[in-house]
Amino acid sequence: MATRFALQLSLRTAIFSARSSNITYRSFASVSSFHGRTHRDQKELVHGEPKGPKIVSKTVPGPKTKAGLQHLDSLQDTRAATMMTDLNKSIGNYVVDLDGNTYLDLFCQIASLPLGYNSKALIDAASSPEMIQMLVNRPALGIQPHSTWAKTLEESFMSVAPKGLNQVFTAMCGSCSNETAYKAAFMYHQRKKRGLTAEISAEDLNSCMKNAMPGSPDLAIMSFDGGFHGRLFGSLSTTHTKALHKVDIPAFTNWVSSPFPNLKYPLDKHQAENAKEEARCLKAAEDKMKTTKTPIAALIVEPIQSEGGDNHASPAFFQGLRGLTKKHDILMIVDEVQTGVGATGQFWAHDAWGLTSPPDIVTFSKKFQAAGWFHRPEIRADAPYRNFNTWMGDPIRALQAKTILHEIKSKDLVKNAADTGAYLKQELQQLEFKYPMVLSAVRGRGTFLAFDLPDPQQRDAFVTKLRSLGVNTGGCGPKSIRLRPMLVFQKKHADIFLEAVEKVASGSP
Amino acid sequence: MATRFALQLSLRTAIFSARSSNITYRSFASVSSFHGRTHRDQKELVHGEPKGPKIVSKTVPGPKTKAGLQHLDSLQDTRAATMMTDLNKSIGNYVVDLDGNTYLDLFCQIASLPLGYNSKALIDAASSPEMIQMLVNRPALGIQPHSTWAKTLEESFMSVAPKGLNQVFTAMCGSCSNETAYKAAFMYHQRKKRGLTAEISAEDLNSCMKNAMPGSPDLAIMSFDGGFHGRLFGSLSTTHTKALHKVDIPAFTNWVSSPFPNLKYPLDKHQAENAKEEARCLKAAEDKMKTTKTPIAALIVEPIQSEGGDNHASPAFFQGLRGLTKKHDILMIVDEVQTGVGATGQFWAHDAWGLTSPPDIVTFSKKFQAAGWFHRPEIRADAPYRNFNTWMGDPIRALQAKTILHEIKSKDLVKNAADTGAYLKQELQQLEFKYPMVLSAVRGRGTFLAFDLPDPQQRDAFVTKLRSLGVNTGGCGPKSIRLRPMLVFQKKHADIFLEAVEKVASGSP
Repeated sequence: MATRFALQLSLRTAIFSARSSNITYRSFASVSSFHGRTHRDQKELVHGEPKGPKIVSKTVPGPKTKAGLQHLDSLQDTRAATMMTDLNKSIGNYVVDLDGNTYLDLFCQIASLPLGYNSKALIDAASSPEMIQMLVNRPALGIQPHSTWAKTLEESFMSVAPKGLNQVFTAMCGSCSNETAYKAAFMYHQRKKRGLTAEISAEDLNSCMKNAMPGSPDLAIMSFDGGFHGRLFGSLSTTHTKALHKVDIPAFTNWVSSPFPNLKYPLDKHQAENAKEEARCLKAAEDKMKTTKTPIAALIVEPIQSEGGDNHASPAFFQGLRGLTKKHDILMIVDEVQTGVGATGQFWAHDAWGLTSPPDIVTFSKKFQAAGWFHRPEIRADAPYRNFNTWMGDPIRALQAKTILHEIKSKDLVKNAADTGAYLKQELQQLEFKYPMVLSAVRGRGTFLAFDLPDPQQRDAFVTKLRSLGVNTGGCGPKSIRLRPMLVFQKKHADIFLEAVEKVASGSP
Repeated sequence: MATRFALQLSLRTAIFSARSSNITYRSFASVSSFHGRTHRDQKELVHGEPKGPKIVSKTVPGPKTKAGLQHLDSLQDTRAATMMTDLNKSIGNYVVDLDGNTYLDLFCQIASLPLGYNSKALIDAASSPEMIQMLVNRPALGIQPHSTWAKTLEESFMSVAPKGLNQVFTAMCGSCSNETAYKAAFMYHQRKKRGLTAEISAEDLNSCMKNAMPGSPDLAIMSFDGGFHGRLFGSLSTTHTKALHKVDIPAFTNWVSSPFPNLKYPLDKHQAENAKEEARCLKAAEDKMKTTKTPIAALIVEPIQSEGGDNHASPAFFQGLRGLTKKHDILMIVDEVQTGVGATGQFWAHDAWGLTSPPDIVTFSKKFQAAGWFHRPEIRADAPYRNFNTWMGDPIRALQAKTILHEIKSKDLVKNAADTGAYLKQELQQLEFKYPMVLSAVRGRGTFLAFDLPDPQQRDAFVTKLRSLGVNTGGCGPKSIRLRPMLVFQKKHADIFLEAVEKVASGSP
């Protein structure tokens, strides 16, 4: 089936790759032929894609990419860069690098590209008079919104607003979406405490100017161990994934975090023990709420902890959290920056929870290309300018969100993610069964999938080997690989990916 | 000269405006004819502009704007909005609102538009294949930069990098530029403390995961009373302009601020007492540096405090600060978010200081349409991902910055700002002399000018009256009006503005 895979990987490259990784995979069965995988005739969502990945350079990254990154590194840090892309040549699910290597992309600019490279719909929208006008005349949306801004909001974000949340605050990225949501939660908390119509005291107004209490109050956002909510000072205080992200940066020392369930996968085979683990975590969360000396204004949680390792919890857990936040008068913020916009097989991942009372705030970014948060009207600040910045988002990215939604609806891309994901997960579980010493804990919803390797080193080597086979993925948590393909990822692409995974898992050169 | 002004303001509107303001201006001389102001024949920088502002609605804002804002307000907060723009009809220095009113714009989307509405150069650039490609394929610049990114950086930001700073960190807005600069300062501080090549201890790595010391250290950024550096949690702890911006939001309570010089204007007539005031502030700053229990990693300062009231200080003061930061081993961050990119008559406002040792970090945003900070190579984090986010800026805005720079250079727009500003300041000083009970403290560099009204209420009324005469400005500090025209603002525009100022100052209906 090597022709089907269309990999032109020379033996020399494979040897180089195996040598440089310092990892020897246990040799299981030879590469499967995957006779069951015949999706070549599925209706194409992207026209003009190559038939598969193609590696043409002797090393990955190749010499041109290395030189390009070296040049860029003279101006800014490139040590996290794994690739230098040639966007002219990239299309659909395939990204091309500077050496002409073609990769099937399952990482997609850190889970942020929704429709594939050089999407025709986005190209058409990019040339529209409205887009050009917004590009050229960037408004300060808070003080001088333009005539079509309400319409843009209605046709983009508001058309998919989570139930019960009919307001949107627009921002620039996931971190600042979360931070402005925290600010809203703090203001709301203090307003309730003061009495909804009470004036702010002179003491509060004077003390805050020097960052002093009571005007700068000792209040907290509660988060979860393993959660990721951004890297600015407020959001970083709620992020608990990797120490290197946090160390040396002053934090809000009283902002508590609580254990997130550490479940066993597949979820349906470990229901009893997982329920016990979730009960333990709910109890721990309530204990924190009860015992903290610093009042908690809001709790923030991801539907699936992503950076933290694709950690899942059941709808019952989230319903339990909603109950606790209601009971203890704490706002519930659901961070859908990575999970939102369809990849889980539902538009919002929290749609799956069946909450009887919706979250108070839902934040978004990434696949919408634009950022912000939905909220209940009561959470709006009590005076203008209190939650504000110059640009308040970017209307060109909101216009793109409108096009993205149109494509999602007209091509039924959320269903595509659900269907493709179900197939991909089932096949990954087969591989897990076949290579139990290499792959484990296959998990996820839609194409928002992940699996574990035995340890961090083997995970890193696996990602590197996949890349040398023309498949781009990313790590998360200590030893997981996360799949974040675009919404146009189909079963035929899944087949190519699965073949590469089996190739690496089997130790096949 | 009413025809020259081209204001079609009905008497009825003027009466309405005077009644609603609740302010009676003292009646001085009648409106001047400004015989000296004859700049109609100056070479145009923008073609196709109207001859002047034109108010056609009976009230400002008019009924369509009010209805538009009311509609938008059902989705998001519009209480700070003073206008709803019709960007199709806006051109150059003139912005048109939904009611068809044409305003001469001296506020320009909070000092952020550089070239005027519907700039031909930006429209041309917006349709370029490169722009469309960047719009459609938004990269995660930290992990998968595209092939032309280094070139874009070189042709945009790096081509005007402040002396001594050959590195750029790209970000999304002014707030996150400052915050990521603070993070860099903290990491640099801790690295120096540890020893440049020392490993981070397990204790640091473990404690930071719970926001606890020593991994989350008690370190500070020092700022100035009256300074504005953003509204996120870190940047807000360095902002000290208005209490309503800060109250109810937890802050880093140990981040100190120090008095900024409160100078008398015009500066050249109060040199001795201003020097004394600056010496007092330098001493206060050094006292804070010496006595603070929380070590200071960096000091941040604006060349001209903008939100805080257009407060100036002399080159000697900033040289003094540089000396103190060197002496006490503190990084110096210059916040050029509002002052940068030409309006002060120099490309960077800090160019005027003649520092012998450049600042360590210079942050930018607004008129560049893109954000980030320049820095010395040593300040780069010691490991990848430590200062990072998904998008790391936006290449379409960087491409715009390149076009903006090309226009600035080819049309000599920094010189235009210097020349127009010198003229405008001199004429404003004449008006200050003529209406001493209304206008005072005319100050500024280039077109980055401001003046004071007697109190906050009169300032607000003055802004409102100017707007009803078709001139858009903004307030700053307790009682100042700041002028932030675009770089294509010429003497003929200044004349129109001056006539409106005199009209309001003289109490002429």
